Amino acid sequence: MMFEQLGLIGCGMMGGSFALALKRAGLVKRVVGYSKSPSTTERARQLGVIDVEAPSALLAVSGADLVLLAVPVSATEATFKAIRHLVRSNVLIMDVGSTKREVIDAARRVLKDQVGVFVPAHPIAGKEVAGVEHADADLYQGRQVILTPIERTLTTQLDKAAQLWTALGCHVKQMSPEAHDAAYAAVSHLPHMVAFALMNAIHGQSEAQDFLSLAGPGFRDFTRIAASDPAVWRDILMSNREELLAQSRHFQRALHALETAINAGNPDALEALIEQASSARSRWRMTAVKPRS
Amino acid sequence: MMFEQLGLIGCGMMGGSFALALKRAGLVKRVVGYSKSPSTTERARQLGVIDVEAPSALLAVSGADLVLLAVPVSATEATFKAIRHLVRSNVLIMDVGSTKREVIDAARRVLKDQVGVFVPAHPIAGKEVAGVEHADADLYQGRQVILTPIERTLTTQLDKAAQLWTALGCHVKQMSPEAHDAAYAAVSHLPHMVAFALMNAIHGQSEAQDFLSLAGPGFRDFTRIAASDPAVWRDILMSNREELLAQSRHFQRALHALETAINAGNPDALEALIEQASSARSRWRMTAVKPRS
Repeated sequence: MMFEQLGLIGCGMMGGSFALALKRAGLVKRVVGYSKSPSTTERARQLGVIDVEAPSALLAVSGADLVLLAVPVSATEATFKAIRHLVRSNVLIMDVGSTKREVIDAARRVLKDQVGVFVPAHPIAGKEVAGVEHADADLYQGRQVILTPIERTLTTQLDKAAQLWTALGCHVKQMSPEAHDAAYAAVSHLPHMVAFALMNAIHGQSEAQDFLSLAGPGFRDFTRIAASDPAVWRDILMSNREELLAQSRHFQRALHALETAINAGNPDALEALIEQASSARSRWRMTAVKPRS
Repeated sequence: MMFEQLGLIGCGMMGGSFALALKRAGLVKRVVGYSKSPSTTERARQLGVIDVEAPSALLAVSGADLVLLAVPVSATEATFKAIRHLVRSNVLIMDVGSTKREVIDAARRVLKDQVGVFVPAHPIAGKEVAGVEHADADLYQGRQVILTPIERTLTTQLDKAAQLWTALGCHVKQMSPEAHDAAYAAVSHLPHMVAFALMNAIHGQSEAQDFLSLAGPGFRDFTRIAASDPAVWRDILMSNREELLAQSRHFQRALHALETAINAGNPDALEALIEQASSARSRWRMTAVKPRS
């Protein structure tokens, strides 16, 4: 498997890491990149992340047999519109978005009959720092990648996508967009929303600085994800709102059960609820564990 | 500063670590230990954590000029009752509990006129493993220790306590029991309750195993504290219930604000709320940071 040209739309940390990994694995001859900000595109070329700067998304796609959209979820539809006139039937288009249904709806609306060349992808990898300077050829290695094809997705493209991520050292899983969005609402989007809420709850109290000066390692780990990029997470929470709010209702019921045991002065009921959580967490191990610096 | 005899009541991970640290610093001549389970006391002696096994809490206190209560919060009152007949006016008694008001109320009720010898202490240190086998002379080093004296606390004892923890490499802070319990409700007890609720919310859904198999590093860090010891955390949440429930109301209001922005389809409002959380978390640094294995 060897691609002639990767058209990279969005030369940030995620997209840049993909280009570097593909180059290192010898899977691509040429990377043509486009970013909304010309200075980002130029920086990506200077850093060797891309080989050629394209002045538009359309020109990055021109001549490409592989296209990666690495833009915020809310920019997906506009990006599809910008490139649709040069989408050929043998190209493989993927994204890296954290939610899938909204991205797929945009692809259907814009690409229409050609939607089969698009393979929705979500690599479970990231960093808390943005920008092409943080692009890293190792970012995806050892991580899970979720592919969420629809009925119209072409098998050739789907197989090619699976082979590509496998060649980059990823564990490829396939599931429906609905199952994907439900699962990540539970294990990623809700934890982020809860961590944001906890920081805001403390921030809103006059004693906030005193409280924070007393916090220790448990607080540090629990709130790490609260430092995530606001624009990226605005898009993720918005685009998966139904599943997220459904998970939030499950969470609030579970919280209420703990509060009820506490309010009722029922230590046995409280201990049973904590025991359930503690043993569920102790049993859990990440599927694809790779220590990261 | 040198103590003749430490009477250690509760020879677990927390108490055992204190005894080892005190011995290593050359601050005590003899450690007499007592645990509810005779096999724990015996194991503590075999491991060199204590020098002498006492058959009762009372006998561990006999002849001691320093006493540490390292028992679950709910066992505090019974422990004070067991030792009160041998509490001398020159002894320094401390605890290591994560909540302070309930412990202090128990001390007032039981010790009465002698309550001044008790200096309530909360070292911000711990491990997710219990038992004297995990006692560690380094546990407290570089950590914060919060002392929460009351009006009747004797200055001599308070000064001695501050010197002792400082000699063990701790940063000593002093505050009122009320301020302590409010702060730790916000930065420790609520995060634990929320982490328990999130695990239970996932656990209660039929897709739980599928969801968990997809979780990544963000979930790992966010839920680490959910694996904590159920009996210890039952006592902590119970004994600080008023402050905890007050903090939970702050949290639920902040969560509701995020949900309202999402429901209203208002990405600008949502981004502003996430930005507030993200910058508050980015600004925060732990006061006493010591990397732990």
